[in-house]
Amino acid sequence: MKIIEDARAPNPRRVRVFLAEKNIQIEYEQLDITEFDHKKPGFSEMNPLQRVPVLALDDGTAISESIAICRYFEELHPEPPLMGAGPEGKARTEMWQRRMELNLLHPVAQTFRHLHPAMKELEQPQVAAWGEANRPRVLNMLRLLNKELSGRPFIAGDEFTIADITAMVAVDFMKPAKIERGDDLPSLDRWYGEVSSRPSARA
Amino acid sequence: MKIIEDARAPNPRRVRVFLAEKNIQIEYEQLDITEFDHKKPGFSEMNPLQRVPVLALDDGTAISESIAICRYFEELHPEPPLMGAGPEGKARTEMWQRRMELNLLHPVAQTFRHLHPAMKELEQPQVAAWGEANRPRVLNMLRLLNKELSGRPFIAGDEFTIADITAMVAVDFMKPAKIERGDDLPSLDRWYGEVSSRPSARA
Repeated sequence: MKIIEDARAPNPRRVRVFLAEKNIQIEYEQLDITEFDHKKPGFSEMNPLQRVPVLALDDGTAISESIAICRYFEELHPEPPLMGAGPEGKARTEMWQRRMELNLLHPVAQTFRHLHPAMKELEQPQVAAWGEANRPRVLNMLRLLNKELSGRPFIAGDEFTIADITAMVAVDFMKPAKIERGDDLPSLDRWYGEVSSRPSARA
Repeated sequence: MKIIEDARAPNPRRVRVFLAEKNIQIEYEQLDITEFDHKKPGFSEMNPLQRVPVLALDDGTAISESIAICRYFEELHPEPPLMGAGPEGKARTEMWQRRMELNLLHPVAQTFRHLHPAMKELEQPQVAAWGEANRPRVLNMLRLLNKELSGRPFIAGDEFTIADITAMVAVDFMKPAKIERGDDLPSLDRWYGEVSSRPSARA
């Protein structure tokens, strides 16, 4: 079993942090997306959508999509639960993981993909107006998150979950995406300080 | 317990089809997104992201995000499994549900939101070039899906799952989004005929 990734990209980092929190060791194989390795036939056969990471199981099965890879390990190694416990806990965690992915990580990524010169070849067509339209969405979500985090330690409740992982990766991805926060957001800062000082953040 | 929705929107339909497949009856309350009911204070308190549907539990808890609502019912009523069985089955189903959501339903919705005159007020700013950029992504995904469906009955394998629900809703949403398919895609047609003739498709 191994994970094929480009360790510089944000989605592979989500999986590495998740596995570090569960104390799961696994083999990693690197490819270089700036050399278009993920568009080459070998990798495309494993993931026709040509995205990293991919989990290659020993029987040849390939699982792509970071959250699906995390789900596999959550089911195999339920402790500590990072995707919630019980019907309501699982639903609440999934709600927050999706909010962080679709309304924070995704708009940060769109800003990066549509405005950064390095993405000119990978994102076709680059639509600068769409990149710009995503900037205020990121800032709105951070404000909402700051308000939410004033009432509880972590994003989905009292425990660290996959929603925190997605949000931390998104906040860190704002730097290459050149999105400046501006606002004073003390609860967000408190949370960010905590999650990014966990050993898993360096995975 | 009740679900608050606008029955004309694609995401609420995903949840209704899911519940119909599980034979779960639940109360529905309608609001009118064309009248901006989802932006009003009462609803915004339940879902600060102002999207439908929302599942309101009897204790006041509000769960939003269609897939999180489905997860709640999957955990409460596991049979028939619509989100996969076992670690590998759950991971594979989540992978395909995400592919269908992020690479089919999402680009259809972006085409609709950024090009349809009816969305002028709700999607700000409308970026026509971004709407157009999504059209070929939809068609590419349908071609890939056609190829995949030549080898198995349903999207994630031998059983009907939530991935089929998301894909069916996406294909039907192509009509208001004014996306014409063009290509001859026989395996996709076979699958679409089957999923859309299930009683749940009319939920």
